[in-house]
Amino acid sequence: MDQSLDNGMDYRSRQRRVAQAVESHHLGALLVTHLPNVCYLCGFTGSAGVLLVADGRPTLFTDGRYREQAHAEVQGAKVIVPKGPILDAAARVAAGLRIKTIGVEGEHLSLAAEATLARALHPKTRARSTRGLIEEQRMVKEPAEIQRIRDAVRLGSSVFDTAVAAIRPGVCEREVAAELEYAARKAGADGMSFETIVAAGARSALPHGQASAQPIPRRGFVVLDFGVILRDYCSDMTRTVHVGKPTAKSRRLYEAVREAQQAAIEAVRPGRTVGEVDEAARAVLKRAALGRYFTHSTGHGVGLEIHEPPRVARGQQEVMQPGMVITIEPGVYVPGYGGVRIEDMVVVTTASCEILTPTSKELLSL
Amino acid sequence: MDQSLDNGMDYRSRQRRVAQAVESHHLGALLVTHLPNVCYLCGFTGSAGVLLVADGRPTLFTDGRYREQAHAEVQGAKVIVPKGPILDAAARVAAGLRIKTIGVEGEHLSLAAEATLARALHPKTRARSTRGLIEEQRMVKEPAEIQRIRDAVRLGSSVFDTAVAAIRPGVCEREVAAELEYAARKAGADGMSFETIVAAGARSALPHGQASAQPIPRRGFVVLDFGVILRDYCSDMTRTVHVGKPTAKSRRLYEAVREAQQAAIEAVRPGRTVGEVDEAARAVLKRAALGRYFTHSTGHGVGLEIHEPPRVARGQQEVMQPGMVITIEPGVYVPGYGGVRIEDMVVVTTASCEILTPTSKELLSL
Repeated sequence: MDQSLDNGMDYRSRQRRVAQAVESHHLGALLVTHLPNVCYLCGFTGSAGVLLVADGRPTLFTDGRYREQAHAEVQGAKVIVPKGPILDAAARVAAGLRIKTIGVEGEHLSLAAEATLARALHPKTRARSTRGLIEEQRMVKEPAEIQRIRDAVRLGSSVFDTAVAAIRPGVCEREVAAELEYAARKAGADGMSFETIVAAGARSALPHGQASAQPIPRRGFVVLDFGVILRDYCSDMTRTVHVGKPTAKSRRLYEAVREAQQAAIEAVRPGRTVGEVDEAARAVLKRAALGRYFTHSTGHGVGLEIHEPPRVARGQQEVMQPGMVITIEPGVYVPGYGGVRIEDMVVVTTASCEILTPTSKELLSL
Repeated sequence: MDQSLDNGMDYRSRQRRVAQAVESHHLGALLVTHLPNVCYLCGFTGSAGVLLVADGRPTLFTDGRYREQAHAEVQGAKVIVPKGPILDAAARVAAGLRIKTIGVEGEHLSLAAEATLARALHPKTRARSTRGLIEEQRMVKEPAEIQRIRDAVRLGSSVFDTAVAAIRPGVCEREVAAELEYAARKAGADGMSFETIVAAGARSALPHGQASAQPIPRRGFVVLDFGVILRDYCSDMTRTVHVGKPTAKSRRLYEAVREAQQAAIEAVRPGRTVGEVDEAARAVLKRAALGRYFTHSTGHGVGLEIHEPPRVARGQQEVMQPGMVITIEPGVYVPGYGGVRIEDMVVVTTASCEILTPTSKELLSL
């Protein structure tokens, strides 16, 4: 039986592509230390693992806690559970390869880990820092990955109403987060993909206002930004609701963000750059004289990680391709007044994009 | 008003100690990039921040999302919100210092970040990799930190009964985790300190069996390992319960682990090494002919991070000092049969240690 068909993930192609990248970069081998990359390449989901990609089958090194799990999960790779630290063990095996250069993941390997590695490698082997070799592959999702993401996004959206039902003046932000996370778990989520943001009233002007003990005020915006993990894949969505009747100013803020978000979505199509998507959102907010309140980038890739390439930000030259999954999440934050953010996940299609997040973007007054 | 008294944390002493470390290591400055260390030194809890420690007040660099939060939280440090990437901005300020050597955190700085830094530094400034300068300080907790940890541990323990009440044959592990996490949130937790482990039946033999869709069997062990975050500090506890009447073999496994855990706790006292604590647990399990099923180390430090120094592991020479907070968590895992782990958090006192976790360790049969 072809085990790689078990969960629909095409580990063979991934391993073939990474082997090609190793060759085209003139590396003798590649040491993969970033866990989402390890998971992507062989299916291992434990919290300690290093994958050595060289000629032939890759080798996963993990520790005793994950022996059974590794044997159950890993596809297309050999599993070794060494006695000592896994990085040393991987380096010793690499030393035996007598290669000139071993690639390491520059964005993920620490200086200390590189020093450990250098000591254990063959004296004639040099470690070379590479960047984004596997992240580059991961940007374009396979159909099975898009299905997983779709499922995660649906689950996330399905609990939004539960959170909204919990929002009442006097209830603290944390309680709203508790109801939302409980509903997500009950619906089958493996966990949340990041710390749930529930930011009410003046706190909605904090773009990353993690749910606090502050009570929901009688009137004002409430930003809800949350995501789930389902079968290793992440979702991410933001909606902003209003408690009490919104003022004309609040409506204007909301509609400007909604328009910016729509413009950015319309800018998503293969062949364009992600920088153009960011610019589309930014232009709308500038015209509304709100440009200076849009203090972050428009979005980011999502998949095995909640933040992964591409960065949908000013000037970014990454060209969109069908299968990329990104967030579109412009926002405005007026200090002391409040903030609005609206976020969907979209997948780039052959002609434009498909919005994965099904939740309405009409301003809800509670 | 002395703001550093606000939350009881002694940021001044911490900043003074790190300044002394910078001097004694002959560094012109230290660039702190590991967020828990940044939080420890100045109180900032955002997800993007770099602290430059040089002569005079330290400087925190963060991005636009955290402008308000940084000004509200940071104590004893200047706050800069640059236009571009924060690491570049910090490097440019460091370049202006015209120092010979800047320390970086070797365990936390990636090769790619070091390359970025090297480009932005003054050509005569060299970056030097340091290890654990701040973690070393953090190992010994201040009274205010111990109080925070105590509060987190109590909150964690207080929801254990809710989890136990949810355990019934046929209920899936994930539902138990959902009830536990919901209760924790309702009790005021800011979140969980790691992915909740609920591992039932044969899955209890997976030391890190994250709660899955598997139903609780009619008979067997259920390992519950979880922790909360409360006001930035983590808790961590494990209890193993039994569904149905345990066999004599299961009772023996449980009692052996309990005895090992007790022996390790009794080995905790200032002046001894953490390696001796590990050895105490290991010796009991060896005598019970279970040594080969104890596949991980005995414990770890806990504080701002769920895993921080010291590692309570075989041969570790770190000497215990009053104020250190560690877990004591031996376990045995018999593949195909099941596993048992019992974990408390303890604080080293002047004479021995105090067990922080109040939950009973009698074997509960459900």
